Amino acid sequence: MITKQKIHPGRREKFTKTSGRVIAPLDALEEVKKAKSVEKIMVPAGSKDAKIRVVPLGGLEEVGRNMMYLEYLDPGSKYHGDIIIIDIGLQFPEENMPGIDYIIPNIKSLLPKKNKIKAAIITHAHYDHIGAIPHVMPKLGSQIPLYGTDLTLAIIAKRQVEYQDIGGRLNLVEINNDTKLDLGVFQIEFFGVSHNIPGSVGVIVHSPIGILVHTGDFKIDTRSSIGGVTEMDKLKNLSKKNVLLLMSDSTNARETGHQFSEVDIQHEMETIIKNAKGRLIIGTFASLLGRLNEILQIAEKYDKRVVIDGRSMKANIEIASRLGYIKINPAILISASEIKRYPSNKVMILATGAQGEENAVLMRIVTKRHKYLKLESGDTVVFSSSVIPGNERSVQFLTDKLYRDGAEVINYRMLDIHAGGHAKQEDLKLMIETVKPQYFMPIEGNHSFLRIHAQVARRAGITDKNIIVADNGQVLEARENSVVLTKEYVPANYIMVDGLGVGDVQEVVLRDRQMLAEDGIFVLIATIDASTGKLRGSPDIISRGFIYLRESKELLYQTRQLIKKIVENDTKNMHPINWAWVKNNLRDEVGKFLFQKTHRRPMVLPVVIEV
Amino acid sequence: MITKQKIHPGRREKFTKTSGRVIAPLDALEEVKKAKSVEKIMVPAGSKDAKIRVVPLGGLEEVGRNMMYLEYLDPGSKYHGDIIIIDIGLQFPEENMPGIDYIIPNIKSLLPKKNKIKAAIITHAHYDHIGAIPHVMPKLGSQIPLYGTDLTLAIIAKRQVEYQDIGGRLNLVEINNDTKLDLGVFQIEFFGVSHNIPGSVGVIVHSPIGILVHTGDFKIDTRSSIGGVTEMDKLKNLSKKNVLLLMSDSTNARETGHQFSEVDIQHEMETIIKNAKGRLIIGTFASLLGRLNEILQIAEKYDKRVVIDGRSMKANIEIASRLGYIKINPAILISASEIKRYPSNKVMILATGAQGEENAVLMRIVTKRHKYLKLESGDTVVFSSSVIPGNERSVQFLTDKLYRDGAEVINYRMLDIHAGGHAKQEDLKLMIETVKPQYFMPIEGNHSFLRIHAQVARRAGITDKNIIVADNGQVLEARENSVVLTKEYVPANYIMVDGLGVGDVQEVVLRDRQMLAEDGIFVLIATIDASTGKLRGSPDIISRGFIYLRESKELLYQTRQLIKKIVENDTKNMHPINWAWVKNNLRDEVGKFLFQKTHRRPMVLPVVIEV
Repeated sequence: MITKQKIHPGRREKFTKTSGRVIAPLDALEEVKKAKSVEKIMVPAGSKDAKIRVVPLGGLEEVGRNMMYLEYLDPGSKYHGDIIIIDIGLQFPEENMPGIDYIIPNIKSLLPKKNKIKAAIITHAHYDHIGAIPHVMPKLGSQIPLYGTDLTLAIIAKRQVEYQDIGGRLNLVEINNDTKLDLGVFQIEFFGVSHNIPGSVGVIVHSPIGILVHTGDFKIDTRSSIGGVTEMDKLKNLSKKNVLLLMSDSTNARETGHQFSEVDIQHEMETIIKNAKGRLIIGTFASLLGRLNEILQIAEKYDKRVVIDGRSMKANIEIASRLGYIKINPAILISASEIKRYPSNKVMILATGAQGEENAVLMRIVTKRHKYLKLESGDTVVFSSSVIPGNERSVQFLTDKLYRDGAEVINYRMLDIHAGGHAKQEDLKLMIETVKPQYFMPIEGNHSFLRIHAQVARRAGITDKNIIVADNGQVLEARENSVVLTKEYVPANYIMVDGLGVGDVQEVVLRDRQMLAEDGIFVLIATIDASTGKLRGSPDIISRGFIYLRESKELLYQTRQLIKKIVENDTKNMHPINWAWVKNNLRDEVGKFLFQKTHRRPMVLPVVIEV
Repeated sequence: MITKQKIHPGRREKFTKTSGRVIAPLDALEEVKKAKSVEKIMVPAGSKDAKIRVVPLGGLEEVGRNMMYLEYLDPGSKYHGDIIIIDIGLQFPEENMPGIDYIIPNIKSLLPKKNKIKAAIITHAHYDHIGAIPHVMPKLGSQIPLYGTDLTLAIIAKRQVEYQDIGGRLNLVEINNDTKLDLGVFQIEFFGVSHNIPGSVGVIVHSPIGILVHTGDFKIDTRSSIGGVTEMDKLKNLSKKNVLLLMSDSTNARETGHQFSEVDIQHEMETIIKNAKGRLIIGTFASLLGRLNEILQIAEKYDKRVVIDGRSMKANIEIASRLGYIKINPAILISASEIKRYPSNKVMILATGAQGEENAVLMRIVTKRHKYLKLESGDTVVFSSSVIPGNERSVQFLTDKLYRDGAEVINYRMLDIHAGGHAKQEDLKLMIETVKPQYFMPIEGNHSFLRIHAQVARRAGITDKNIIVADNGQVLEARENSVVLTKEYVPANYIMVDGLGVGDVQEVVLRDRQMLAEDGIFVLIATIDASTGKLRGSPDIISRGFIYLRESKELLYQTRQLIKKIVENDTKNMHPINWAWVKNNLRDEVGKFLFQKTHRRPMVLPVVIEV
């Protein structure tokens, strides 16, 4: 699942400056160690009271912020208290959280136990699985190994450079689909999964109480290996060993049938590229690396010259090329400044900004802020993803501008980001039937997605009492042959990141921002003579976002008169003067007066200054 | 087209109080006059220089705010300057317009000519066609007759009562599909259209220069008359007379094929109602009167008792029943308080709030604020409309809560409000082929919708040069056998309504609101001794929406020190002191300091008080 990349312009600017070069992150790759793979999984024995607490910190009531940990409890054992983490993702903010950059999981319950954390396993490189690493790892301990495939780690490293002033160094350890890890009581295997970013894996946890399987994000594509292969054979073999618990991706659980095959998507894409009469501009996501690879292959086949435009897309493609995930003939790549040298029908532009992001390439083109690219009649613009909720307005603006400038627009709905990377109901059923777990827990999705996924599990033969729909923070206790949803909750509320602040924006700040956005602010300053208790001069008024002050002189005059009257009346017979009371009265009365005059409710802030 | 009904809670409350009774508007119906229909259309003669200016004031770059006027110019004629208006709608605000209630058309170009306005014709009762009446009509002249069908006028009247403190009385004149109006130079006929509210019409304007046709919102349903019939025969006859210009609804121009038939929708709805095992709660729009009627008919067939819940829905159903558009056996209606008397499978609830509106019935049920209705396991909740952009979050919240409380949720996508009421490409083509106009102008939609509709017109045989894609405010000049898109623009910018203010919220106020929403406000107050030019005491700081002040004592301390330093330095060698300069410096330096410390950019407002 890819979610919207809405980063505060101020912040984004900063990272560019800090990192200096666009491809800085690649240097960080040198720090990556290879994991030591063991020959054979050897599960230590546990006592009959041994249990694993499965603690989801996010991802069970939303799409995003995926993170969970497993904690082994067996008081007599040397492994007692051992913990592994799976994924450390972020969530993009909702519309009612103005100014918030993103939301990360609450790790409070982990902090007292941080010395027992053996590892964090990262299933793939999308932000909802890696995005909270710069914030979370320094607090948990940067020495903790982060396991992931080469591409996953490269993207984590790149992001860490962007956050170098807060994130610090990481202990990155590379695995592949066949790595077997000995993490004490937890013996880990992986299985490759098909998803819209290469290097995605699911996790198999062997433990004294049994096997737990975490799918990560996945889809199943039986007709093509372009998007990677979900290694169903590994899972089939596993089912013979009796899997205790399967935790599976619910992102697309509401969709019936099977997910599209990459074959069909490739075919559609090829038709578009083949038929484009003029230049072809494809707007997509920098993180959709599998798709970008396909497009580049087709471009080469049809002898197109390709401009890769957008900082993040360039960086990601460079990383993926270096690691061999994208095989590209460097000769077909040209820079934006060279476009004019080629005939229109030989030019293709891969651009960021299909969601109408303000400073991405597509928006810069249509608003004529792009240095080299101007729209020409005959251009075809392809939107390779459907609109993410919240972006409709910007995308509509973009589309209208494109039409106005004479471009042909194709909304290529099959490349829908939601549709593209995740298993649909029949795929999910197949996953459950393949793994044949004793217990099933849907993960990664809103509550309703989990409930619908639970219905799928029922159809796949799991009995109701063995299906566990949990909430964020709600603890499961897994024992040999049993998994119980407890009534214990660990803190799992939203931790909001706003600039350098993590978790310091509370409800009250957000409520204030919403209120300020609605009708603005109205500050009134009454200067009082301390000796007489009387107003000195006329009250000052400062207002923003309420009314256009220059055209509201009469209203301001009346408000000043009202303030004078209130202060006079309130202080007349009061000794000593209770200024808190006077201020409350000013707030109420001025608020009422302004509402009566305008039917708006600005935030009224009275200030009394005694001199 | 129905758009979201997001009215500021403060305002909504007020109208309830003012109008007193829920069904107050029905009284206003008594004021409606019947139109005098003429026997035969008699078009006056015009000179060979006669022309009609077609002036779209809204609806050509958006979905909403539909309004246009036709102005007859023929200097020698007694009809010279005559004007008729078609529709006076509103548009709901975008996400980047916090606090704005809605947007109305700019009528500046009409004001100097208001005495020449013969009539306003309203095609149907949806807000994007009637919503600006309370604001616009008092300015144009309330004596101007507003023509519409009985239901259209009843809903206009009801809304006018809600706005009685600004709207005043209206001159409402009732027409039906066959009324022929003599409006001087403009001779008007109507044709009934199928849409998702009854009483919808299109307009045929006979004039000395030829016939102009305005479809209003319409769809074509050849298999059913449930949703009304688009009178294609009338249009077919018209085509023999050579129609000069057809202006047609583009809302669904992006959709291929034909619109669904009400037969299919009814069938689906019947299946759901028949199969519901427990109570059935259907969330829909109060304005979808056609659909509500169908649901009520099926409910009666299956012997359900129906609760109509939601003020606007009750009022609309009462109006439509009185006028005979909804035929309902009063015996099946029960009140919410009576629900317990009936078995669950006999109870159906028609509720507002399918878009997750805060105070509508569905939200009150799931948040347990509804007096009589609590969710029970076995309840089926049907969402009868797809999610309007911007409402995803609330609808997802609602859905998750419903699942949590054990309800079954059905998203009935065929009842999609966008899909339901508007012609799709093949229907649009049929409209053009039936009317056979010389010129064609797509209306009602974003620019890209109009362009796609233009492509449809090309397929329907209209030549490129006879297809006119105009912008809001752009004037067309129609003469006998020619329509030309001029380069003349009348003002057609957004007029924003915020509380009692119409058009007073300008860009600067909106920008301030957006800025306040992002990172809040930081007011610093420096009290200066006028005699010495020195700070008196410590500067005061007031901040909202920026950080949680109680946990930021150190930052506040440092900021105060900075303010002191700046004031000291800036005033040391300056005589007289330029306070504007000092304030600017304070704004910049404190802003920089706060950004450096927090990476947030609150609005910094320095206040200097000399005492």
